Amino acid sequence: MKMALRACLRTKPGLTGLLSQLSCSGHAAARRAPALVAQRSSSSTSQKIKVDFDQSTGVAVMHMQSPPVNSLSLEFLTDVCIALEKLEMDKSCRGLVVTSSQPKVFSAGLDILDMYGKSPEHCAEFWKAVQEMWLKFYGSNMITIAAVNGSSPAGGCLLSMTCDYRIMADNPRYSIGLNETKLGIVAPFWFKDTMVNTVGHRATEMALQLGLLYSPAEALKIGLVDQLVHEDQVLTTATETMTKWLAIPDHARQLTKSMMRKPTIDKLAANREADVNNFVKFITKDSIQKSLGCIWRCLREERLREGKHVCTLCSTSYRCDLTSGSEQSTCLGDKTQHLPLKVLIKTLEVRV
Amino acid sequence: MKMALRACLRTKPGLTGLLSQLSCSGHAAARRAPALVAQRSSSSTSQKIKVDFDQSTGVAVMHMQSPPVNSLSLEFLTDVCIALEKLEMDKSCRGLVVTSSQPKVFSAGLDILDMYGKSPEHCAEFWKAVQEMWLKFYGSNMITIAAVNGSSPAGGCLLSMTCDYRIMADNPRYSIGLNETKLGIVAPFWFKDTMVNTVGHRATEMALQLGLLYSPAEALKIGLVDQLVHEDQVLTTATETMTKWLAIPDHARQLTKSMMRKPTIDKLAANREADVNNFVKFITKDSIQKSLGCIWRCLREERLREGKHVCTLCSTSYRCDLTSGSEQSTCLGDKTQHLPLKVLIKTLEVRV
Amino acid sequence: MKMALRACLRTKPGLTGLLSQLSCSGHAAARRAPALVAQRSSSSTSQKIKVDFDQSTGVAVMHMQSPPVNSLSLEFLTDVCIALEKLEMDKSCRGLVVTSSQPKVFSAGLDILDMYGKSPEHCAEFWKAVQEMWLKFYGSNMITIAAVNGSSPAGGCLLSMTCDYRIMADNPRYSIGLNETKLGIVAPFWFKDTMVNTVGHRATEMALQLGLLYSPAEALKIGLVDQLVHEDQVLTTATETMTKWLAIPDHARQLTKSMMRKPTIDKLAANREADVNNFVKFITKDSIQKSLGCIWRCLREERLREGKHVCTLCSTSYRCDLTSGSEQSTCLGDKTQHLPLKVLIKTLEVRV
Repeated sequence: MKMALRACLRTKPGLTGLLSQLSCSGHAAARRAPALVAQRSSSSTSQKIKVDFDQSTGVAVMHMQSPPVNSLSLEFLTDVCIALEKLEMDKSCRGLVVTSSQPKVFSAGLDILDMYGKSPEHCAEFWKAVQEMWLKFYGSNMITIAAVNGSSPAGGCLLSMTCDYRIMADNPRYSIGLNETKLGIVAPFWFKDTMVNTVGHRATEMALQLGLLYSPAEALKIGLVDQLVHEDQVLTTATETMTKWLAIPDHARQLTKSMMRKPTIDKLAANREADVNNFVKFITKDSIQKSLGCIWRCLREERLREGKHVCTLCSTSYRCDLTSGSEQSTCLGDKTQHLPLKVLIKTLEVRV
Repeated sequence: MKMALRACLRTKPGLTGLLSQLSCSGHAAARRAPALVAQRSSSSTSQKIKVDFDQSTGVAVMHMQSPPVNSLSLEFLTDVCIALEKLEMDKSCRGLVVTSSQPKVFSAGLDILDMYGKSPEHCAEFWKAVQEMWLKFYGSNMITIAAVNGSSPAGGCLLSMTCDYRIMADNPRYSIGLNETKLGIVAPFWFKDTMVNTVGHRATEMALQLGLLYSPAEALKIGLVDQLVHEDQVLTTATETMTKWLAIPDHARQLTKSMMRKPTIDKLAANREADVNNFVKFITKDSIQKSLGCIWRCLREERLREGKHVCTLCSTSYRCDLTSGSEQSTCLGDKTQHLPLKVLIKTLEVRV
Repeated sequence: MKMALRACLRTKPGLTGLLSQLSCSGHAAARRAPALVAQRSSSSTSQKIKVDFDQSTGVAVMHMQSPPVNSLSLEFLTDVCIALEKLEMDKSCRGLVVTSSQPKVFSAGLDILDMYGKSPEHCAEFWKAVQEMWLKFYGSNMITIAAVNGSSPAGGCLLSMTCDYRIMADNPRYSIGLNETKLGIVAPFWFKDTMVNTVGHRATEMALQLGLLYSPAEALKIGLVDQLVHEDQVLTTATETMTKWLAIPDHARQLTKSMMRKPTIDKLAANREADVNNFVKFITKDSIQKSLGCIWRCLREERLREGKHVCTLCSTSYRCDLTSGSEQSTCLGDKTQHLPLKVLIKTLEVRV
């Protein structure tokens, strides 16, 4: 099934028919897995996604369990889309809670390894999967609640924003936001549209320009999340909240949700191919690849070492000091542009 | 005059010219009723609308007095539109306060009896009158202030949102909001647009999906109303507030108001016929008619009786308990969808 | 150079190519003034604009010094645009702080003398310069921070809203807002769009209809400014804030800023000529000219005199009382429309 989706993503020249094709694939899968609907409570587990579906309530919980930080790789995105599609096709499933099984992180966002050192074709396939994830979640007929039980930067923040309601763990060490600019990349228009729909134009302008990561309290204040609860209560609160949403007749709620979101969804649906081309053109630039390389090396080699380092790209000497948060900078592959290490580390600390 | 308007609404095949025709009708009415402009202070009373116009201030007060709860029936909407049109044509009338003469309720919203068990033609005529009311109020050249001295669900909330300013009685028993989904129906796009213009996209998405009714304090917090005052002070505060607005030169204020609202108005004006067709198609569905029937029976027969009931549609046994607010549910004509009675009763309690 | 710009504004029949032509002019100017880029820290001073550029930080500070209140006259707007264009062309300049050298005022807005008693041609040239200022600032590639160290009504508020961040002096005697309606004129759609992007639709509707001037505390509450600091700290806080913005890679920040603002900019860019025509047609009306004349006389002749006055236009007797703020009114050239003097004086008090 997963391979079928990836093949589909890979081979179709036109993008307009993709959504419905995926729906067909999902439908077939649902027919092949009747256990999902026949049992009162079922559990469907792929390697990286665990779905618990309670027939008595009509609510499924999707646990993301892709170590270490639920990075949204092409493979993981494909798994997520297939799992969502199965639930969407099952008429008895009315609500979905999305949460993480990994400690301290909801999702670290798009996987850098699907963008760094890869062919344009791979980058295109990856980006189509990101689009697909957004289209499916933002347009879901189900009630979707994000149980944000850890940090949620970039693509992780996007995923949570596609849901109908966001409950976050009230732990000041966690953060959430679209921090792309801090990494030298740019959130595309549909990330932006989703955020504008959530927190308004001005907060989005500030957040995206500065690549802001918000503490839970700050996120609540600007409306990026809807509710804060103790870390232990995130999932149970999500389930309780779901009860309120389930009290609304589905057909009326679905028509209303579609009315609110359709214009935003249509904008991407009508421009998927151009959006893929823009992404591939941008991400395969030498300067951007150098930036990604530097970020990756920092992630891989240096995350546990504190002390003095010399940037392998531009020979700038800097000090990696996670605790004091000194304002030393690391090179992003462009001698005139440096990124404060504190910022970089904060962004990525969920991996440390 | 009223008949003329209704005939106009009933017979014209094209809708685009309707607004200007109504304006002509209103103009004629103004000429036929010179007392309105000749007196220093005049009072114009139809059966269900009482208009007090003070020439010395240029401010009219429209009292809605359609027992028991100012339901927006076809007849009442026609009266309201005629009264507004008269004032609009009178150049000496610069401001309008809209309020209720009924206890505990501003307006209970659209009248269910114009949607339940009626012919498609009647439903279409009704919906055109709802559109007309919105077009006239949202596009009024006058300063419009809603003195919300009671609960204001659904169409009542819409009416208040068309005004330039909303003052609500600070009584926690009152509520305001577009609660259509809770009744199994859907607010159309122009209800949605009006609410987005008032409280923003995200608050509207939540409010409409969940059919939220807000307490006065909650409504103030999200910006659904602008000011809370003691129940006894709603009308006098509206008059005082009007003074501030009257200090602004009319031509500048009117051009500014039009600039803010014209795109939203144009969206409906360009799609009235399709919007009527959508409404008629939706409201005449068997499932929706069954829901409306159940709501109506609840309103008519059961509103004063507490205790155990058996739903006449699906034989579900439920307990009607207004005080404890227990989560028993009543059938909405669809055995798989139930509406918590507490919610239903709360919505309708202005009638109890 | 300034003459070249004004000639350009005056003679070109088509407007679409104007922006790029100005860019060329600016480029030429930059080449003629190599001192600006060669020195580590340079200061470029026209009569009314002083620009301090620090090469070590890449940040320029533009001091507006056009006595008495930095009115945005055709001449001053031209100076401002030339200064901005020079900085925009200089790749080493990454950030710009805009502030005032005049006491108690950031900018009093558009200069009434370029709209009152002038030929339609002059009014058109003036309006093109206002458009140009907005297009350049709102679309600037630089990080722009407004250090609002005084009152900022009308065009002054617009200028501050074009910036990426607004820091205002926390002095309750200062105010900020688009108060055009109070003067009997109307903010055009792109003023409105800028404000909607900053504080949202509803706050803009209220602010523009009532011509509201907000105290610093009120402005912070609705999001019209981002931060309040003591009067002495406005400029230093702007410089500190700039440091945070400079940490973001320019290319990512610029693409993001453009994504947020381009639709709004494109709306004016595609309608400049119609917008100029609208403005000229409106401002040259007899009734508007009379209003402007009355405002001007009030500014010029009566600002220091308290006591009884008789309006020279309609012979209404009124009392000018700055301290008690009595609600007497002055004539705006239209016997049926009066403007409360308190409001007028408050609007203009920065000049007193």
